[in-house]
Amino acid sequence: MIEQLRKERPLVVCITNDVVKPFTANSLLALGASPIMSGEKNEAADILKHAGALLLNIGTCTEEKIPLYEEMARCANEYNIPVVLDPVGCGASLFRKNLTDKLLRKYDIALVKGNAGEIHALSGREAASKGVDSIVEGNTLDIAKAAHGVLNVPVLATGETDAYADGTQKITLHNGHEYLEDITGSGCVLGAISAAFLAMKNNADSIADAVSLYNIAAEKAARTAEGPGTFAVKLIDEIYKFKTDDYKTKRVDVHE
Amino acid sequence: MIEQLRKERPLVVCITNDVVKPFTANSLLALGASPIMSGEKNEAADILKHAGALLLNIGTCTEEKIPLYEEMARCANEYNIPVVLDPVGCGASLFRKNLTDKLLRKYDIALVKGNAGEIHALSGREAASKGVDSIVEGNTLDIAKAAHGVLNVPVLATGETDAYADGTQKITLHNGHEYLEDITGSGCVLGAISAAFLAMKNNADSIADAVSLYNIAAEKAARTAEGPGTFAVKLIDEIYKFKTDDYKTKRVDVHE
Amino acid sequence: MIEQLRKERPLVVCITNDVVKPFTANSLLALGASPIMSGEKNEAADILKHAGALLLNIGTCTEEKIPLYEEMARCANEYNIPVVLDPVGCGASLFRKNLTDKLLRKYDIALVKGNAGEIHALSGREAASKGVDSIVEGNTLDIAKAAHGVLNVPVLATGETDAYADGTQKITLHNGHEYLEDITGSGCVLGAISAAFLAMKNNADSIADAVSLYNIAAEKAARTAEGPGTFAVKLIDEIYKFKTDDYKTKRVDVHE
Repeated sequence: MIEQLRKERPLVVCITNDVVKPFTANSLLALGASPIMSGEKNEAADILKHAGALLLNIGTCTEEKIPLYEEMARCANEYNIPVVLDPVGCGASLFRKNLTDKLLRKYDIALVKGNAGEIHALSGREAASKGVDSIVEGNTLDIAKAAHGVLNVPVLATGETDAYADGTQKITLHNGHEYLEDITGSGCVLGAISAAFLAMKNNADSIADAVSLYNIAAEKAARTAEGPGTFAVKLIDEIYKFKTDDYKTKRVDVHE
Repeated sequence: MIEQLRKERPLVVCITNDVVKPFTANSLLALGASPIMSGEKNEAADILKHAGALLLNIGTCTEEKIPLYEEMARCANEYNIPVVLDPVGCGASLFRKNLTDKLLRKYDIALVKGNAGEIHALSGREAASKGVDSIVEGNTLDIAKAAHGVLNVPVLATGETDAYADGTQKITLHNGHEYLEDITGSGCVLGAISAAFLAMKNNADSIADAVSLYNIAAEKAARTAEGPGTFAVKLIDEIYKFKTDDYKTKRVDVHE
Repeated sequence: MIEQLRKERPLVVCITNDVVKPFTANSLLALGASPIMSGEKNEAADILKHAGALLLNIGTCTEEKIPLYEEMARCANEYNIPVVLDPVGCGASLFRKNLTDKLLRKYDIALVKGNAGEIHALSGREAASKGVDSIVEGNTLDIAKAAHGVLNVPVLATGETDAYADGTQKITLHNGHEYLEDITGSGCVLGAISAAFLAMKNNADSIADAVSLYNIAAEKAARTAEGPGTFAVKLIDEIYKFKTDDYKTKRVDVHE
């Protein structure tokens, strides 16, 4: 699918947080997709008209940006374009939790993607301890399944093991590297890459391809990185150089 | 001129988009200029008072930022400081098109710089197909000349070949590397570097020097880059290390 | 203290400028702290509840962000969390000067950190010439002492020599590398790292440890850097790899 993606160069509209905009745009360009970012609801219809997917990432969200998120989601739904929602820090404040709930309630979401703590918070269950790093990693699939049960949308929960759950498929994905935890926006970029793959085909296989590509690229980047600084730079190179053959090291389990 | 620039360190006020701020600031610092960014119209007069140039880049523009663009342009005109306008994505939405038209109509612009698709859209002609990548590269000079004919301001249109047109000079510039297409903000940074050169001398030679410096630095960076990630980092190094001697590989054609 | 910091992973709330958000977040992650950024005053109480420190950096400040700065500072004071104020460009516009004065007047600030020119401007004295690069470097300690005399808060003034002054301690710090002047946000990141150390212990030793760690990491990064681009990337690696042993090259003078 990566070769098809590079041929079609889907336009991915990214409404994302202030911390990860350059990294997100560079990752999508390296992948072969065409990113566009916007902060203005009045251009939502114009720019989504030609888009293949919409990413809504609520990091650094504000009261003033809510109409932007809503108008982008509304237009994407109207044009039948898949929407990826990344509820960054939705367990960290009531403001983010309420915004996430509202977006999930009002719009069709093709994928909710978050780290284990964020997805856990979406299920409406109290986290065992403060913050988002408290969740036991082994539970990622349970967390994804629980959130899917409550929300009834496809869910991707990331951690040492990544897990995906929708109405028919439960998948765990085992590639990746711990450096991903040491750089900002690694999860946000995965959301953007997932959106680019969903633009090609809106199904579970696309998510598995997106996650595996990203995590295998991370493994390759880590081999010669001397720390998280060089890792982040080489990660872009490896996304750019990724070939279908590289999927050979994919480690994915499909569950009953 | 690069040596003079490094001695004088012109202050370049950058009103630019959210995706490229770090890259833009680092490029100007590597060049030897002094960047300052602002989001507040009430400080326009204070910070432009000592400035050598103003960059207006409308990527991620919003309704709320229009008074900022206008006040910055107004002050720059009042102080007689060259203004570079980069109409990012002006063909992608009516909102951006209207904003660009307004800025061109109301303020003195020293240079409009955009990729071929953006400059084409400025001429008021319908693009052959959706998006901005559709324009045939060979037409860059025609596109620049057409836009200059309509707008009556100096125009720089970028592509595989870059082209400049004003009332008396038509120039094509042939350096560069395809990696520039694979990183975000490469065009935006060229706008900032052009502004720094215009701060030294507001004429066509400055533009030619700016474009050639940037594209030659890109060629050098590409030699040892392993992908667009390392390329973007090495590009900053090469801008920093650029010497007058490096202009020897400049490939510029002056047209009748 | 760096080992304790890596164990406790203090949450550092960063209200910082648009140009340095990715670099700041990556630096704190490399250090071993946990950064969170926000643009919404309504979540101030929620996210500061678990925080170890607050960074207020007023670069790219706007009229609209003032209530955000104020509510964050108010909550941090209420929870007794140290606040680091970085008055970026406070000498460049009256708008920034007034905002800085207001924050210093209304809230308890654990540290004011700025370059020599900014700290000089805070003392209410007229700068010798326009801009912030005009201050003689040899004066950093005098500038810090003068600002502390006027403001009565701990002050860190950066330059070729960095200087710290509070009611009882005057310290000069001599590590660092000139590449720090050639990248954007190097001072802003030092503010963030200082905040992370103050989260562990709110005293002068923490500042000395923060500044020395950062400057020694810069010295190490510069050894193999080929320019400011690769330097900025390697700086993150060196912050990540920094060990207590690396403090052996610390050059700090304690003054009467």
